[in-house]
Amino acid sequence: MKIVKNPPREKWKALLQRPYQDHTALYQTVQAILEQVKKDGDSAIKELTQKFDGVLLDGLQVTEEEIASAITLVPQVLKEAIQQAKNNIEKFHEAQWQQPKIIETMPGVQCWRKNVGVEKVGLYIPGGTAPLFSTILMLGVPAVLAGCKEISLCSPCNKNGTLHPAILYAANLVGIHKIFKTGGAQAIAAMAFGTETIPAVYKIFGPGNQYVTAAKQMVQMQGVAIDMPAGPSEVCVLADDTANPVYIAADLLSQAEHGADSQVILICTSETVVAQTMKEVELQLLALPRKNIAQKALDNSTAIIVSNLLEGIDLVNEYAAEHLIICCQYADSVAEQITAAGSVFIGNYSTESAGDYASGTNHTLPTNAFARAYSGVSIDSFIKKITFQKLSQEGLRNISETVIAMAEAEGLQAHANAVKVRMAE
Amino acid sequence: MKIVKNPPREKWKALLQRPYQDHTALYQTVQAILEQVKKDGDSAIKELTQKFDGVLLDGLQVTEEEIASAITLVPQVLKEAIQQAKNNIEKFHEAQWQQPKIIETMPGVQCWRKNVGVEKVGLYIPGGTAPLFSTILMLGVPAVLAGCKEISLCSPCNKNGTLHPAILYAANLVGIHKIFKTGGAQAIAAMAFGTETIPAVYKIFGPGNQYVTAAKQMVQMQGVAIDMPAGPSEVCVLADDTANPVYIAADLLSQAEHGADSQVILICTSETVVAQTMKEVELQLLALPRKNIAQKALDNSTAIIVSNLLEGIDLVNEYAAEHLIICCQYADSVAEQITAAGSVFIGNYSTESAGDYASGTNHTLPTNAFARAYSGVSIDSFIKKITFQKLSQEGLRNISETVIAMAEAEGLQAHANAVKVRMAE
Repeated sequence: MKIVKNPPREKWKALLQRPYQDHTALYQTVQAILEQVKKDGDSAIKELTQKFDGVLLDGLQVTEEEIASAITLVPQVLKEAIQQAKNNIEKFHEAQWQQPKIIETMPGVQCWRKNVGVEKVGLYIPGGTAPLFSTILMLGVPAVLAGCKEISLCSPCNKNGTLHPAILYAANLVGIHKIFKTGGAQAIAAMAFGTETIPAVYKIFGPGNQYVTAAKQMVQMQGVAIDMPAGPSEVCVLADDTANPVYIAADLLSQAEHGADSQVILICTSETVVAQTMKEVELQLLALPRKNIAQKALDNSTAIIVSNLLEGIDLVNEYAAEHLIICCQYADSVAEQITAAGSVFIGNYSTESAGDYASGTNHTLPTNAFARAYSGVSIDSFIKKITFQKLSQEGLRNISETVIAMAEAEGLQAHANAVKVRMAE
Repeated sequence: MKIVKNPPREKWKALLQRPYQDHTALYQTVQAILEQVKKDGDSAIKELTQKFDGVLLDGLQVTEEEIASAITLVPQVLKEAIQQAKNNIEKFHEAQWQQPKIIETMPGVQCWRKNVGVEKVGLYIPGGTAPLFSTILMLGVPAVLAGCKEISLCSPCNKNGTLHPAILYAANLVGIHKIFKTGGAQAIAAMAFGTETIPAVYKIFGPGNQYVTAAKQMVQMQGVAIDMPAGPSEVCVLADDTANPVYIAADLLSQAEHGADSQVILICTSETVVAQTMKEVELQLLALPRKNIAQKALDNSTAIIVSNLLEGIDLVNEYAAEHLIICCQYADSVAEQITAAGSVFIGNYSTESAGDYASGTNHTLPTNAFARAYSGVSIDSFIKKITFQKLSQEGLRNISETVIAMAEAEGLQAHANAVKVRMAE
């Protein structure tokens, strides 16, 4: 990790720059995949799965038998852990429901919003170096709570043409039964356009590699909604001299092991804590199975020493981290000053991995400074809030002059007429 | 309007097809504009404004004097109407705030969400055939309520280099003081990248022509958030034999006058009501100043006679209209069965124009069947919901086995370690 001491404010922007990810180079490749799937459906998916994943599939959909057999393969201790995480995620997301309130804005003018689950949603769960069954809980639990009627899940299979048992177990536990063995841009294409086997959906969720990200961006241009733009995962730790270097190092490494492109930032008021943390990072790194990946991520990462905590808070808000861990003496009041972050972890015992798996908050969060404008996934992501209004004759009378004056001033006479014909009687 | 009687379900999709809008042909033109503005800032804006709007501007920002003088030009009756509309919009949108609740998912594990306004937002208000000051209320009121700190507004000026007084009046009333005289793709570019005068923002809102729409889509790919994808405005009226053809005709026309590309759909159980409505449309059309525009929109529009109301409801949900007006005897229970629409107007006195201007609901709504996955603009559109969590030592202990089991099963040892180092003490 690079160490920077007291950078002047005019250097902050450059210092906090994420590694630039330009997906335009991929667009041509991804466009071809999108078109192939649109045209040839299932047979395109099978061809692309053979090409990219090296396996020739008979059927794309996971069968009941495969699910049943996967369930027997998951160790009891993991089943209990997944169940506990599910309970917590349910508890937190259920409380996000907003009960509709009827607002009478003027006598006889009633307005309200109603929550309706997006009818058809698709969840993408990456394969690759780790079987991310936790993401199934993070997307599937709110989808079910929101009342989404049709939930599909796509995930790339391994060389044997199967999905990891924990993936199938978690999906089944959540209540997702339409599971398809396909990954990459072709999975996104299938969910966007539909194939004979894989239904088209209205909104696509989930992380993925740069092909998946590019495909999501491209189908969004064609009218399919997506959860949010994606970039590599990242953590920022804000610490003062009361922080524990052992804990900080463990948190930085837990982010760094995600991928070589992960970003890790330490912002600290204490030079000593930074130095001790760097030593701890070296030490803990040695024991990690994914140490090569973590080392690469650390090479792109920075520790910044600031002269005081207020400057640190400004820096943190400027960075708009996906995950922000606050290890400071007055962590609560620091947390109150955070204006941009995906998810905030307060104090020494709130490690990021608690939220990654099981505390109840969602781990699908805005990266790449998107936290300036985007929220993480929540039950809101799976519902539409339809507005309703009901005016009585008196209500329309009360509002009629206002509407007529405004419509006429905008030069929209038919808008005014729609009120006038009703008032004429 | 075309009249179709009892179309079989397999024909619905084709029948409800929106006119396809392919913006890819515009991308090259828009891309050049985006790059020019990114590179040359204010001088690019001035050059493009001269080219497209035929006016050479001295300054891009509307001055205090211009605002003060505009205020004197707005008639008192319009001022009162705008004030009334603002009050109602405020009342409805204020009630959308969700108070944060702390959820203790397990003993010692506290999770909550906090609403924080998007710090910098940009509102685009089209010029063209109508001065849409009502859109300023619809976007500006929730932006201010959400606590957005920096709100910019761009709108194209007329040939004299000025903005319509009602635009300036409404902006000032809402509390927006950074107003810039620029329109089209160049305005979107300015708000996305920033110029010497126009600040870069994190999220861009507002309707516009196809260049504006394409520019919004393209800057979204580069990390700037937008309110929603846009398409031509549309209304669907669902009526039975109790409906008033005079009212229906007025509602259809108020949508049709928006633009030649507007779409108008009538779904009705009564052939007689359809026939009477068609006659009324012809009659009312004659008196409209924008009758040529409305006629063109009607040419692309359809009345569908259905054999019963349940079929009508299915059809309406399939269409997913931006605006849905329900003129049926049991309008309330019909409304309860709506699963996809931007905004729903219940009963004979709930004309769309009430909601367009002043009832309190937002008029920035999902078109083009985006209502299947998107909500209209609300206070949610201007805030981020940041999640927070705070675990006590006991809380982390309670959750530790769960996190460790899941992290290890996903092959993420450093995630498990971040818990273990804290439990070791």
